[in-house]
Amino acid sequence: MSKGITSRAEDYSQWYNDLVIKADLAEYSAVRGCMVIKPYGYAIWERMQAILDKRFKETGHSNAYFPLFIPKSFFSKEASHVEGFATECAVVTHYRLKNDGHGQIVVDEEAKLEEELIVRPTSETIIWNTYKGWIESYRDLPILVNQWANVVRWEMRTRLFLRTAEFLWQEGHTAHATAEEAIAETEQMLEVYADFAENTLAVPVVRGRKTENERFAGALETYCIEALMQDGKALQAGTSHFLGQNFAKAFDVKFTSKEGKQEYVWASSWGVSTRLMGALIMAHSDDQGLVLPPKLAPIQVVIVPIYRTEEEKANVDGFVDKLQAELKGKGISIKYDDRDTQRPGFKFAEWELKGVPVRVAVGARDMQNGTVELARRDTQRKETVAQEGLAGRIEGLLEEIQQNIYQKALGFRSAHTTEVHSYEEFKDVLENKGGFVSCHWDGTVETEKRVKEETKATIRCIPLDSVEEEGTCIFTGKPSKRKVLFAKAY
Amino acid sequence: MSKGITSRAEDYSQWYNDLVIKADLAEYSAVRGCMVIKPYGYAIWERMQAILDKRFKETGHSNAYFPLFIPKSFFSKEASHVEGFATECAVVTHYRLKNDGHGQIVVDEEAKLEEELIVRPTSETIIWNTYKGWIESYRDLPILVNQWANVVRWEMRTRLFLRTAEFLWQEGHTAHATAEEAIAETEQMLEVYADFAENTLAVPVVRGRKTENERFAGALETYCIEALMQDGKALQAGTSHFLGQNFAKAFDVKFTSKEGKQEYVWASSWGVSTRLMGALIMAHSDDQGLVLPPKLAPIQVVIVPIYRTEEEKANVDGFVDKLQAELKGKGISIKYDDRDTQRPGFKFAEWELKGVPVRVAVGARDMQNGTVELARRDTQRKETVAQEGLAGRIEGLLEEIQQNIYQKALGFRSAHTTEVHSYEEFKDVLENKGGFVSCHWDGTVETEKRVKEETKATIRCIPLDSVEEEGTCIFTGKPSKRKVLFAKAY
Repeated sequence: MSKGITSRAEDYSQWYNDLVIKADLAEYSAVRGCMVIKPYGYAIWERMQAILDKRFKETGHSNAYFPLFIPKSFFSKEASHVEGFATECAVVTHYRLKNDGHGQIVVDEEAKLEEELIVRPTSETIIWNTYKGWIESYRDLPILVNQWANVVRWEMRTRLFLRTAEFLWQEGHTAHATAEEAIAETEQMLEVYADFAENTLAVPVVRGRKTENERFAGALETYCIEALMQDGKALQAGTSHFLGQNFAKAFDVKFTSKEGKQEYVWASSWGVSTRLMGALIMAHSDDQGLVLPPKLAPIQVVIVPIYRTEEEKANVDGFVDKLQAELKGKGISIKYDDRDTQRPGFKFAEWELKGVPVRVAVGARDMQNGTVELARRDTQRKETVAQEGLAGRIEGLLEEIQQNIYQKALGFRSAHTTEVHSYEEFKDVLENKGGFVSCHWDGTVETEKRVKEETKATIRCIPLDSVEEEGTCIFTGKPSKRKVLFAKAY
Repeated sequence: MSKGITSRAEDYSQWYNDLVIKADLAEYSAVRGCMVIKPYGYAIWERMQAILDKRFKETGHSNAYFPLFIPKSFFSKEASHVEGFATECAVVTHYRLKNDGHGQIVVDEEAKLEEELIVRPTSETIIWNTYKGWIESYRDLPILVNQWANVVRWEMRTRLFLRTAEFLWQEGHTAHATAEEAIAETEQMLEVYADFAENTLAVPVVRGRKTENERFAGALETYCIEALMQDGKALQAGTSHFLGQNFAKAFDVKFTSKEGKQEYVWASSWGVSTRLMGALIMAHSDDQGLVLPPKLAPIQVVIVPIYRTEEEKANVDGFVDKLQAELKGKGISIKYDDRDTQRPGFKFAEWELKGVPVRVAVGARDMQNGTVELARRDTQRKETVAQEGLAGRIEGLLEEIQQNIYQKALGFRSAHTTEVHSYEEFKDVLENKGGFVSCHWDGTVETEKRVKEETKATIRCIPLDSVEEEGTCIFTGKPSKRKVLFAKAY
C-alpha cells in the first residue's frame, strides 16, 4: 500500500503536512488559516487535556470560563500587551445580518457596535478586569484559575497545528499577594509542563527563560520549554509568565494586605496549545507515519485476525475476546480490526500510519502453535511470541516503547546540541547540522536582532541550568556572563 | 447570616439572579450579554460534560473540532437556516487593529476581510461543508461526531445561563445513508438527554416533538425535552433534530450507495448547553440557596469541625482523616472546612447556599459520645448519628437525596400539569396556576401564533407518549387528533 507520504529526507515540511492529513489528524477548513481537528487527532488532544487537567487540579487550580470577546479599549490599558497582539486581531464590528432585498445576505449597517469587540488572542485583560471584582483582601488570594478555550490570532502564514488563526489551548491566570508567590507559581507550572512533555509526550525539553526580546507582551519574565524537532528546528512547547503587577495596575486591582495596606496584586499566566500536537508529530514520527507514545495513543494495541474460513475466524475471535478482556482490565485501549473489506497488509499499513504502538496479528497457524505475531511501531520489529502471558508482555512493551521513544529523542537532541566559540562555527552548525547551538552572547537586544536577521536563528532560551561563567560574546566580542541556546525555530 | 437572597415568593426572577451570583456560579462580564462562569459553577458544568461525554462515546460518537468562524456565504445556502440565525450574528469584518498616531487603538481599515465571517451560532453549515470532503461512498457512513464548543447568538435580553450572547454547549452532527438511520439517531440522542436530565440532573422531562413553528431552522423534525421550573414556567432542556437531506443538498454532499447510485446524505444534529445550569438551579433550589443533586455536586459532603481548644481540634482531625479516607474510597467528594477565620454557623450557611447535599458537623462532645450531626440539604433535616458505619450511611443518604429531589420535582410537575377543555379554562390555569396545560389544538400555525400573542403561552411539544384520539381544538373548535402541551416558557 502506498501511503502517499513524502519522506523526511525529500521534503520535511511536506512530510509533516502529508502525515497530518493522511493520518486523519486535521485539515484546513473553508476559513482562511483555521483548521478542522478530525476525530483521531482530537482523541489525542483529549488525552493531553485529561492528563494536564488532572495535574492542574492536583496543584490546586480550578477551571472557569471567561468571554470570547474583549472590548477594544481593554487592549489599550497595558501598553506592551496591545503592541504584541493588535496586528493580528479578529474584530467584531456588527451584530446582525439582513437580507438586502435581492436575495443576498449582507451585514446590517444599522447593527454596528458602539465599541468593537476583539476575539480573544489571550485573556489577561478580560480576566484581570474580572478579578478586580473578586479581590478585596489578602483572604481572597491566591486565585488559581485555568481556562480551556479557543483563541484567535490572525497569522498570515499558517501550518496545521503549528500556527493557525484559531487554536485550542488552556490559559492559567493566577493572582497572588506577593511577587515571590507569583514567581513560585510561574516556576511550578513550567515544571508541570516540562514533566508532561517528557513523561507523557516523550519529548525532552530545555527549561529556560526568554530574553527580553522574546518575552510575552506584558510579562516581566517568560519561562519556556523548548523541544527539538527531527529537522533540527526548535519548537516552543509551553510558556509560563511572571506578569508582575502590570495587569493589576492596568485594571486597578488592589488588595488590603494583612497589615492593612492597599497593594497591587501579583500575577502569573501560563499556557500550552494544540501546537503540542505538532511537537508530538515532528519529534517521533517516521516515513511510515505517526509514532505515538503509548501514554497518548487513543488506540494502544491493534489486533488483526488472519483467516480464510469462517471457522478459522471464529477460532481467532475466541482468543481475541479473552485477550481484550485481559488488556482492558489493565486499562489498555484496544482496537480489534476484523473488517472483512480490507486485507491484513492494508490494515498493517493503516495502523502503522496512525502510529498505534503495538500490533498483534493472529492467524490459523498461530492458533495451532499457541503464538501470535507481536510488532512494535517504534522500531518496527516483529517477533513470534507465546499466547500465554501475552497481556502482561504487552503491558511491559508499552512501557518500554514509551521509554524508548523518549530516549531516542533525547539522543537526537544531545547529538544536535553544539557548543560553538565563533560566529563562523555558529553559522556552519546552523546551516549544516541544525539543532541547538550553545554560545556566549552579550545580553543585548541589538545583537540578538542582528543574528536573527543574518541567520534566522533566535535565542530559544537562557537555560535554567546554565552556569554563570566569564565568557566572550561570539558575535561582538563583548563580555558575557553565561551561554544561551540559539536555534532556528517553528 | 443574611445571605441576601430574595425569596421565591417575593420575586422569583430576582431570587434566581441572587442565587447565581451569591452561590458563585456566574456573573455578567464587561461584554454585553456575555457571562463569566466562576469556578464553582464551572465545576458543575464539568461534571455535566463528563457524564454526557461518556454517554456520547458509549453510543459510538467521537469528538472533533470545527472552526469558530463561518463564511457569510455559507449561511445563504440553507434558506430557513439563515432566516433563523441572521438577526443575531456577531460579524467579524476586520483582522487588525492599529495605533492611530494619537495613542488611540483603532480598527485598521486596510485590514478588511473580503468576505465577512460569522461567529458560529451553530455549526451545521461549516460542518456539512467539511463532510463533503469526508464522504464518497456508503462505507464512509455513518459519521458520528460531536463537538464541545462556545457559540454566539446576539440576544437582546439576556439572563445568566438561560440566555446569554455567548454560551457553551455540545453539538452532535451525524451523517447517514438512510432516513431511517438518521431518525433512529435523532431519537436515540433525545433519549440520552432525557435519561441524563432525569437520572443525573434529577429533573423529570417530557419527551416530545416541536410543532412546525418551533422547529430548528433547517430541520424536518425537532425533538425536545421540556422541564418545568418552580415558577410554573417550562424550560427546553435539550433538542435533537432530524435534518433530512437539507444540509446535504445545500452543500452538495452525496454518497455512492451499495447499489452504485449517487444519493444525498441524511443528517441529524443535537445539543444541550450551559442553559442546563439554569434548569438545574430553578428546578430544585430554595430560599436558602442551591439544592444540588449529589451526582452533580462538586462537593458532596462538607465536614465542619466544632472546637474550642487545639486539643479538641486535633481529636476531631484524627476522626475526620479516617472518615475522609473511607469516603474517598467510595468515590465521594469531600470538603473539610477547617478554616479558623469563620465560625461554624457561617460555614453552615455558606455550604447550604452552595447546595452541598450532606453536612457533617463534629465537636468535642460528639467525640466523647461517638456521634456526629448529619444534615441533609434537600429536607434540611438534622440528626445525631453514630460515628460507626458513617461512611456507608452517607453513601446511602446521597442516593436517597438524589431520588428525593427527583420525586419532589416529579410531584410538582404532576400537580402542575392540567388538562383543560376550554379557552377560558386554559387562560385561567395559565394565569393562576401555571405549569403545563394539556389540550386539543387544531394543528395550525395560525392558531398557535394567536394563542401566543394573547397569552404568551407556546406549544412546548407534542409529547411522544400522546395518544391519537378524536377531539376539538379549544381555541377554534376545529377537529384535533391529539393533545399537545402548552406553557409559558423560558
